[in-house]
Amino acid sequence: MIPVGSPYPIRIDLFSDTITRPSGAMRQAMAHAEVGDEQKGEDPSTNELVALARELLGKEEAVFLPSGTMCNQISYALHCRPGDAILVDDNAHSLRHEETGAPALAGALFRPIKADRGVFSADQLTAALGPEGRSMARNAVLSIEQPSNLGGGTCWSLEGITSVTAVARAHQIKTHMDGARLLNAVVATGVSARDFCAPFDSVWLDLSKGLGAPLGAVLAGDADFISEAWRLKQRWGGSMRQSGIVAAAGTFALRNNVDRLADDHANARLLAELLAGHRNISIDPTTVQTNIVLFDLVDCPVTAPVLVERLLRKCGVRMGAFGPSTIRAVTHLDVDTAGVRLAAEALCELLDETYSMHVSKKELLT
Amino acid sequence: MIPVGSPYPIRIDLFSDTITRPSGAMRQAMAHAEVGDEQKGEDPSTNELVALARELLGKEEAVFLPSGTMCNQISYALHCRPGDAILVDDNAHSLRHEETGAPALAGALFRPIKADRGVFSADQLTAALGPEGRSMARNAVLSIEQPSNLGGGTCWSLEGITSVTAVARAHQIKTHMDGARLLNAVVATGVSARDFCAPFDSVWLDLSKGLGAPLGAVLAGDADFISEAWRLKQRWGGSMRQSGIVAAAGTFALRNNVDRLADDHANARLLAELLAGHRNISIDPTTVQTNIVLFDLVDCPVTAPVLVERLLRKCGVRMGAFGPSTIRAVTHLDVDTAGVRLAAEALCELLDETYSMHVSKKELLT
Amino acid sequence: MIPVGSPYPIRIDLFSDTITRPSGAMRQAMAHAEVGDEQKGEDPSTNELVALARELLGKEEAVFLPSGTMCNQISYALHCRPGDAILVDDNAHSLRHEETGAPALAGALFRPIKADRGVFSADQLTAALGPEGRSMARNAVLSIEQPSNLGGGTCWSLEGITSVTAVARAHQIKTHMDGARLLNAVVATGVSARDFCAPFDSVWLDLSKGLGAPLGAVLAGDADFISEAWRLKQRWGGSMRQSGIVAAAGTFALRNNVDRLADDHANARLLAELLAGHRNISIDPTTVQTNIVLFDLVDCPVTAPVLVERLLRKCGVRMGAFGPSTIRAVTHLDVDTAGVRLAAEALCELLDETYSMHVSKKELLT
Amino acid sequence: MIPVGSPYPIRIDLFSDTITRPSGAMRQAMAHAEVGDEQKGEDPSTNELVALARELLGKEEAVFLPSGTMCNQISYALHCRPGDAILVDDNAHSLRHEETGAPALAGALFRPIKADRGVFSADQLTAALGPEGRSMARNAVLSIEQPSNLGGGTCWSLEGITSVTAVARAHQIKTHMDGARLLNAVVATGVSARDFCAPFDSVWLDLSKGLGAPLGAVLAGDADFISEAWRLKQRWGGSMRQSGIVAAAGTFALRNNVDRLADDHANARLLAELLAGHRNISIDPTTVQTNIVLFDLVDCPVTAPVLVERLLRKCGVRMGAFGPSTIRAVTHLDVDTAGVRLAAEALCELLDETYSMHVSKKELLT
Repeated sequence: MIPVGSPYPIRIDLFSDTITRPSGAMRQAMAHAEVGDEQKGEDPSTNELVALARELLGKEEAVFLPSGTMCNQISYALHCRPGDAILVDDNAHSLRHEETGAPALAGALFRPIKADRGVFSADQLTAALGPEGRSMARNAVLSIEQPSNLGGGTCWSLEGITSVTAVARAHQIKTHMDGARLLNAVVATGVSARDFCAPFDSVWLDLSKGLGAPLGAVLAGDADFISEAWRLKQRWGGSMRQSGIVAAAGTFALRNNVDRLADDHANARLLAELLAGHRNISIDPTTVQTNIVLFDLVDCPVTAPVLVERLLRKCGVRMGAFGPSTIRAVTHLDVDTAGVRLAAEALCELLDETYSMHVSKKELLT
Repeated sequence: MIPVGSPYPIRIDLFSDTITRPSGAMRQAMAHAEVGDEQKGEDPSTNELVALARELLGKEEAVFLPSGTMCNQISYALHCRPGDAILVDDNAHSLRHEETGAPALAGALFRPIKADRGVFSADQLTAALGPEGRSMARNAVLSIEQPSNLGGGTCWSLEGITSVTAVARAHQIKTHMDGARLLNAVVATGVSARDFCAPFDSVWLDLSKGLGAPLGAVLAGDADFISEAWRLKQRWGGSMRQSGIVAAAGTFALRNNVDRLADDHANARLLAELLAGHRNISIDPTTVQTNIVLFDLVDCPVTAPVLVERLLRKCGVRMGAFGPSTIRAVTHLDVDTAGVRLAAEALCELLDETYSMHVSKKELLT
Repeated sequence: MIPVGSPYPIRIDLFSDTITRPSGAMRQAMAHAEVGDEQKGEDPSTNELVALARELLGKEEAVFLPSGTMCNQISYALHCRPGDAILVDDNAHSLRHEETGAPALAGALFRPIKADRGVFSADQLTAALGPEGRSMARNAVLSIEQPSNLGGGTCWSLEGITSVTAVARAHQIKTHMDGARLLNAVVATGVSARDFCAPFDSVWLDLSKGLGAPLGAVLAGDADFISEAWRLKQRWGGSMRQSGIVAAAGTFALRNNVDRLADDHANARLLAELLAGHRNISIDPTTVQTNIVLFDLVDCPVTAPVLVERLLRKCGVRMGAFGPSTIRAVTHLDVDTAGVRLAAEALCELLDETYSMHVSKKELLT
Repeated sequence: MIPVGSPYPIRIDLFSDTITRPSGAMRQAMAHAEVGDEQKGEDPSTNELVALARELLGKEEAVFLPSGTMCNQISYALHCRPGDAILVDDNAHSLRHEETGAPALAGALFRPIKADRGVFSADQLTAALGPEGRSMARNAVLSIEQPSNLGGGTCWSLEGITSVTAVARAHQIKTHMDGARLLNAVVATGVSARDFCAPFDSVWLDLSKGLGAPLGAVLAGDADFISEAWRLKQRWGGSMRQSGIVAAAGTFALRNNVDRLADDHANARLLAELLAGHRNISIDPTTVQTNIVLFDLVDCPVTAPVLVERLLRKCGVRMGAFGPSTIRAVTHLDVDTAGVRLAAEALCELLDETYSMHVSKKELLT
């Protein structure tokens, strides 16, 4: 369980946009950041980032946290009492990759909603509310992920958000948006972050993914909510000291790295198009809205985990296996168009080779 | 509850060693740090810091965390089951400044031991164990703080540690050391960190206090313990990405800022000596072992909170009020000997002035 | 949420076997029970029941608890640490009717296994274990329900139990049996309770269902487990005083009311056969193994909730709606064969009537 | 930890009023109780008890629970959020004998107030509130015990209650009364239960102590509070079925066993007076207000635990040791005045004998 690093050298890394490294200019911003003790409100760079996030997200207050996971978990712990339920799509990151947080930290359980690439309708939400009763969990919070990571980067429309949050409000259910890649959705749809955030009690955006900062996320909401979030930040050990060093990278990212997410989206679409032609790959490039390419292997003689291991070992190209026949590739600022083309070529050739070997083996055997 | 910063400009800040700012050289180390995704074990700078801490503390494994609070809370959550008890001195930081963590995160309670400046004996520990019984909490972990912050920076002797941890082991009680300022104790006593840490199941040291790094702490223990700690780091949102940026500052601090803690200790002793002479101050300078000076006001016409506010407002010198008549001053790398002298003078003059005003008022009234 | 009773008089109550009332002889046993303080081990009648249960279930120790829910929840809290997972069938009572307990009391989550009438195979269990990882819940306990209530009273075979518990043990997963109606399974299959219980770390049986005692359940396991269970019984407020009054009813039930469960099973089968002929009802009587009859409405112009309300209001017969078109009827010692026949007749007539009214309405409209 | 009963026969049991056994008349009330499923609101005897308690305590709603511990713990879990504080006297039963409940079930901690025989003033409460702050627990509930068990049965005056609850309300702190022996305080002071309960958000009384019912307690508050309490009763497994069997004993107790508590009080006072004369006993009989006699051993050659063991073994009289030199005796309906006289005599003779043996041993040695 103690992480050990990659066993092979990596040339082109499409595993995740979490691997982006700070650029030289971002490093300079960090090196010159004015800092103080954030726990006393005396870190100017953290204060600057928080002010910027408040403005961008259109919320009264905000707080800097070491990770997006802490943003989700603090929000759930504040919106829920022990024994309450969290309504999420069945592929939500908080359900699939943070499953232990809500029960352990909030005493809460998930009600997964069978969604289409991470998105569900107001009717589906209403049906998921279930009967009320003394032995049933109270539905305490609706949590959506914008865009959906395991839904292949699919964006919620503003209409979709408006309708599900209206259902929630009608049932006194709090609303939360996991904005791990919120600005990707903003760039892809043209809807402002402020508009996407307006219907939610709590929202956050991550600085360490496509935006390229080394770490951190900003959680926003009304002043009372953020005041309570500070209690949990302190309790759980998320309070730092001269956090301005890393907050400065976040500010730099918000000022310089947002528009260029369009390049990542174009690269993702290109990758999907390059792969779509291959006989062993199933993907519809028109479904690629942001920087995530989720595709399935078809009639492939090896499983996805075997294939991605080979791709890394033989070609130095890293993608991620998400199930026995599903692969995820994520574009980001450390991979350019040429890199994406090379990765697509490498994968297609490897598939051809794998297929030929398999066919010749079968021929030998018959 | 949302922190708001100091209302007055600060010239000499003795509030805490948490306010230390990274030096130019440390900033350069951060700016040039090689980084990767720490969650995959691919951040070389974080790996380097962890290796250094393992060596320094003499433990099998270690993990980088955003704060010392998270080190304490993860350790408690791993050593305890819900309903268990944590044995601590009655001034322990985890009890006095993190009181909500253990019940909320571990379902655990504290058994405070009436200690002398943070230090207690094996007999006191044995007496505190209390009767066993179905309705009593099981004593799960002994937690000591080396040196004791609210005990005025007092160090546990190696003998003291050996004897209390022996009692704990004899009762199947886990042992934990809060090493927020561990290296201050090492420098003050000449005992190695490795020797201090040897009897404990879990230990940590903070990088953001007297060592001068902007943030972070390292928790160490055996491989199983750290593997479980990684689960909670992930669950609570303490997992970061390119944490090497800040880990590099920790490595720099461990390599460059340890020996100089002796200067802080000398400055603290000097401060105590300069204050000891004043008629309104009670302190025995020989009790000052590290960088913390805890002194009491005697016959002072105003309370400690009022006095420290005046000291900040009028003189730009910041200290902390710890109760109605107790003040804490902490020396660190951002305050030199001249600063300490100025602070002592400012405080003594302010006390004289306060006293005179008070006397003349009383004279006017009589 | 405060329970309010039935709005209509009830003549034949097939809602649940939880409604059974103590017989005259059982009341006499209670009236003459020798009692003491159970918290001091001084209640002879409770001690007698516990000894009887130990023997019956073949376990080292046992403890009397106010309900089966407390048996489940104490077991989960002891077998799990916060963030662990409980493997259950997707219709398990602990999942469907106690969903808030595990997250709130143990910080645990459920991994539901898609089962066939409550029963799943070793392969299904293995597939459900999922990948291991730092962000995944550890699989801590396998929980099966014997027989499955919402699976229509279906019994696990001894072979089925043997194979799934072997998988669990191979993965260091604890095993728990919810025996709310365990003796129904014993009577139906001819396998002894002792044999069914042998592979489990914790098992319990309920005294207040078909056995006819007013309240209580007995949880059994090894001595260490029961010693820990006593801690939670005390902590949660499940410790009572002169519990022998009600324990005596449990002992009476175990001595007098077990064999007669066969009558309930025959009545349930009869009910299923009487209903199976009706055009609006779908049920295969051969699936009825114990005292639970779960049947579906087919082409019925009203929903199950509407129909059961009418059945109660018009005929004084109570059954339960379990979904839009599913009804559950449970036989027990307070309903004899004549009552079952009357209930079947009443339901069939009501269905005919409902259908005719509906048809005539439709005819009127066309 | 599994309770094992008394090793010696007991003739006169003053250990606790929890050991009272139901009388013949009470057993008849139980034997003839009309019952149903309490979880559906269909148990007439439970409904009758709840109605009686509502009236007696002057609250909108009430709920029957298996124990007083569950009343305390459900109240704390409802009044607190994780990380909140409960203000109690430093000898409160919930602190001294239920210490694991609040942290494990509510994530809450206790703030003990140094009290005089369980009673503290409004000023003491105010001082205990402590400073507010992000890292401090929020004071969520004031919990008082009326009368104080470990305070020797001392009653809170109505004025005392009024003043501390006023402080609580002024700080948005909920108020809770542990009424384990509430009716003893009512009988002793002449103040009505209704008046004592009026200022509290939650109150309960125990039926199984001096009132003589075998088990159970009733928790009362407003309808919203009790509705939420039902959720936890269900979740924790405190929901029963035909609970009317035992509820009927509670109703019988409230109708027949309240006034006679005055006899227990007279007996307790008598016991104190009989003991007060002895040279090895320190007690002021005027402090005995209810049925609890807490006295200290003075110059006694053996400890309290040794003495009570001898008293039981040699004389068949059981009292309880509460510390090295403190003994508690509790009067109740199963011990009459003659029994109390015999117990006092036995203890005094045993003390004399112990003293003589000790003196002669010392003489032999010198």
